[in-house]
Amino acid sequence: MPNPTAAMLVIGDELLSGRTRDANMHYLAGELTRAGIDLREVRMISDDAEAIVSAVRALSAAYDHLFTSGGIGPTHDDITAESVARAFDRPIGVREDARAVLAAHYEKSGQDLNEARLRMARIPEGATLIENPISAAPGFSIENVHVMAGVPAIFNAMVASVLPGLSGGAPLLSQSLRIYRGEGDIAGPLGDLAVRYPELSIGCYPFQQDGVFGAHVVIRGADGAQVDAAMQALQSTFAE
Amino acid sequence: MPNPTAAMLVIGDELLSGRTRDANMHYLAGELTRAGIDLREVRMISDDAEAIVSAVRALSAAYDHLFTSGGIGPTHDDITAESVARAFDRPIGVREDARAVLAAHYEKSGQDLNEARLRMARIPEGATLIENPISAAPGFSIENVHVMAGVPAIFNAMVASVLPGLSGGAPLLSQSLRIYRGEGDIAGPLGDLAVRYPELSIGCYPFQQDGVFGAHVVIRGADGAQVDAAMQALQSTFAE
Repeated sequence: MPNPTAAMLVIGDELLSGRTRDANMHYLAGELTRAGIDLREVRMISDDAEAIVSAVRALSAAYDHLFTSGGIGPTHDDITAESVARAFDRPIGVREDARAVLAAHYEKSGQDLNEARLRMARIPEGATLIENPISAAPGFSIENVHVMAGVPAIFNAMVASVLPGLSGGAPLLSQSLRIYRGEGDIAGPLGDLAVRYPELSIGCYPFQQDGVFGAHVVIRGADGAQVDAAMQALQSTFAE
Repeated sequence: MPNPTAAMLVIGDELLSGRTRDANMHYLAGELTRAGIDLREVRMISDDAEAIVSAVRALSAAYDHLFTSGGIGPTHDDITAESVARAFDRPIGVREDARAVLAAHYEKSGQDLNEARLRMARIPEGATLIENPISAAPGFSIENVHVMAGVPAIFNAMVASVLPGLSGGAPLLSQSLRIYRGEGDIAGPLGDLAVRYPELSIGCYPFQQDGVFGAHVVIRGADGAQVDAAMQALQSTFAE
């Protein structure tokens, strides 16, 4: 069975202006790889309703899962929840269980659950809440879309809540080899190897470190015996 | 007049697997903001020809400019150049001026311009080369698409070559010098030079190669005579 596929949609003007550097994409990429889910595409867009609706529709149709990050806070430009509702033609409103979670959280911290904060309890009809152990305001899953916060610590915690429930395919096995040659010298033999093992993914990642240069070659695949065989072939090619 | 719009397409399996963290998106976002160009959307996709072709078509049609990063090296999975050619139905082949740049670079470093490296001289018909002052292999601009390297130092240098031509300014002329000193030794004289030539842009890009380290200093400006004069001053400062 092939691995499930995924896309990520990162929402936020502050990323596109260069003000903030995204951290969530790199984190999610690593977690999905470990879970055996292939992240195929990431899009970053601004807090624009039309852009969110059309990206959610396109990506949720094209991949098995879509993870979103950002735009679910209390301010006027946090429009992810209502845009996702629109993408699936679902009504959205304050949900009692979400409001209760927020009320308990703000009561504990002595803050007011005002109208702005109450926006964070607006959940599209039919969605499942995603727990937020850090600041209470929940994310949600609807259809195959998992809507999460942009703040990295909260995003990471939500990913940890969501991932175990998604059925991973066979985990990808990988082996890597450090080769102290220029990429141009590695390219030929690597191309031959890719032809011999069409089901494996073979990547070449150059490095320069402490005056030494070379590349990490990473071989990935669901079939461990094939990965082993390809790695042995690679090692014998570049044995000193 | 509204600001021109832009999108970025980041190409590379290593980003989607979480192995590598992208640095180019954040850099480009800042540079575009300074240049008055609105970055509206970023997509990250894998080294997959169909995905590249369709993203290039969609993004170059939707925005005034499209910047790509990655997939123009010498290995079999570097397929950006041919995919961009396909997106515009243009033929692609080794171009003489690009081959000459590579030949000169590899002759100087005593390396072989083999078949793998020659792939980096393949340029779609009708494209304009983008200078690579660091490792020679050029990027290119075709229609409204600017195809650049994924290695951050090279990407940054290419952005510096391309941007002035897009924001309506005079095209920048550039000269570069390889200096075999630590950046800390270069910084002082370089700062003095920047004070003497306030209209020039002076960039310093450190490298480590074959156990030797140093920096490429790139001097850019609209006035060729000034660039010449500054380069002569730099050469005489660092003459053995």
